[in-house]
Amino acid sequence: MALQRPITAIAFDAYGTLFDVYSVGALAEQLFPGKGEALARLWRERQIDYSRIRSMSGRYKPFWAITQDALHFAAASLGLDLGADKGARLMHQYSCLSAFPENLGALKALKALGLPLAILSNGSPEMLEIAVKSAGMAGLFDHLLSADTVGQYKTAPAVYQLGPDAFRCPARDILFVSANAWDACGATWFGYTSFWVNRAGQPLEALDVEPTARGRRLTDLVTWLQGEETA
Amino acid sequence: MALQRPITAIAFDAYGTLFDVYSVGALAEQLFPGKGEALARLWRERQIDYSRIRSMSGRYKPFWAITQDALHFAAASLGLDLGADKGARLMHQYSCLSAFPENLGALKALKALGLPLAILSNGSPEMLEIAVKSAGMAGLFDHLLSADTVGQYKTAPAVYQLGPDAFRCPARDILFVSANAWDACGATWFGYTSFWVNRAGQPLEALDVEPTARGRRLTDLVTWLQGEETA
Repeated sequence: MALQRPITAIAFDAYGTLFDVYSVGALAEQLFPGKGEALARLWRERQIDYSRIRSMSGRYKPFWAITQDALHFAAASLGLDLGADKGARLMHQYSCLSAFPENLGALKALKALGLPLAILSNGSPEMLEIAVKSAGMAGLFDHLLSADTVGQYKTAPAVYQLGPDAFRCPARDILFVSANAWDACGATWFGYTSFWVNRAGQPLEALDVEPTARGRRLTDLVTWLQGEETA
Repeated sequence: MALQRPITAIAFDAYGTLFDVYSVGALAEQLFPGKGEALARLWRERQIDYSRIRSMSGRYKPFWAITQDALHFAAASLGLDLGADKGARLMHQYSCLSAFPENLGALKALKALGLPLAILSNGSPEMLEIAVKSAGMAGLFDHLLSADTVGQYKTAPAVYQLGPDAFRCPARDILFVSANAWDACGATWFGYTSFWVNRAGQPLEALDVEPTARGRRLTDLVTWLQGEETA
């Protein structure tokens, strides 16, 4: 495999991109039959909302705590009682999310191309460490970069700046990969070369900015780096 | 009526608080039978998302344009074709939203208490002027304060600062009123005395902050100002 794009490193978003945040839906469904999907969706939505609201208001709180807050709100909003241990079980599940099936192979292929890899995530450092280990990805990443270092969340420029700082190169030489369209757009605004993993086949967010490239799975990224076009 | 709370002015959020953003749902349903509610909901969700993402990334764009962008994304995401004029009709409807039925009476009662009133909104100045006129609220407000003045969106402190600047008093002397819980929370963080109009009977957002008071309708605010407790 030869690298056909002018990229010297890759930075991945974690939640939704490497780790399947909706994989908690199965446990949620088991705990709250018929409401699992709604709970998982509202939980994720509020997790992102809280990260943005807190960042904008200068009220940073670590992502693990925000994730817990979001779960409590989502459950209360849907009239679900987390009781003594359902909340703890869901949070535990969140700490060791499933990876998307093709990801491990794709990451190894990218590593074989000689590219240093990083995670650049809203997640707290401990969350990222546990998630990487759980997904069998230990040793694949040169850096686990957390928004916690700067006390703000994406899409704040200070968070994206962690990539160039870690790799000691301009953002445009780093490929930023996210399945969250808003994150791919934010990274593109910041100056990264970017790849949007459009898993759900959604239209691009209407933000007047286009990620450099896009595909449906992480394997499409490997293809694109070798100079081929993707869907 | 006598004022029992140490408040010297009131600032209202506009969309969702004074003007019913879901009132576009009726037209949406007429244009896209069976999909109107989904379209109105996703449209509103993306409108808020885009305001936050742009604010965090320093990519301000006026709220009217963001509202249009959000409509285009929402329609595309749901596979709905806005065609030549459906988008224009929905945007026109958005420009002259219905007010919640009790609002005009409540505002007049507050005005009768001798309190200066303002709108403090993400909305563009022209949007606010047209909305106020359409709702029969002309002459009730001393200030129409728009996030456009500072090129950021709520919950950025610069936006909330418009209130103290306009009324020339500290935020704690101003009652900030919003039906959007996140906005009531953001304003409370900033330092306002705050009132959350919890129209949907939702639990409070899990943001470690409590609005000063809450009620279900704008009329509850009038009651509260006279020293009575509300639900």
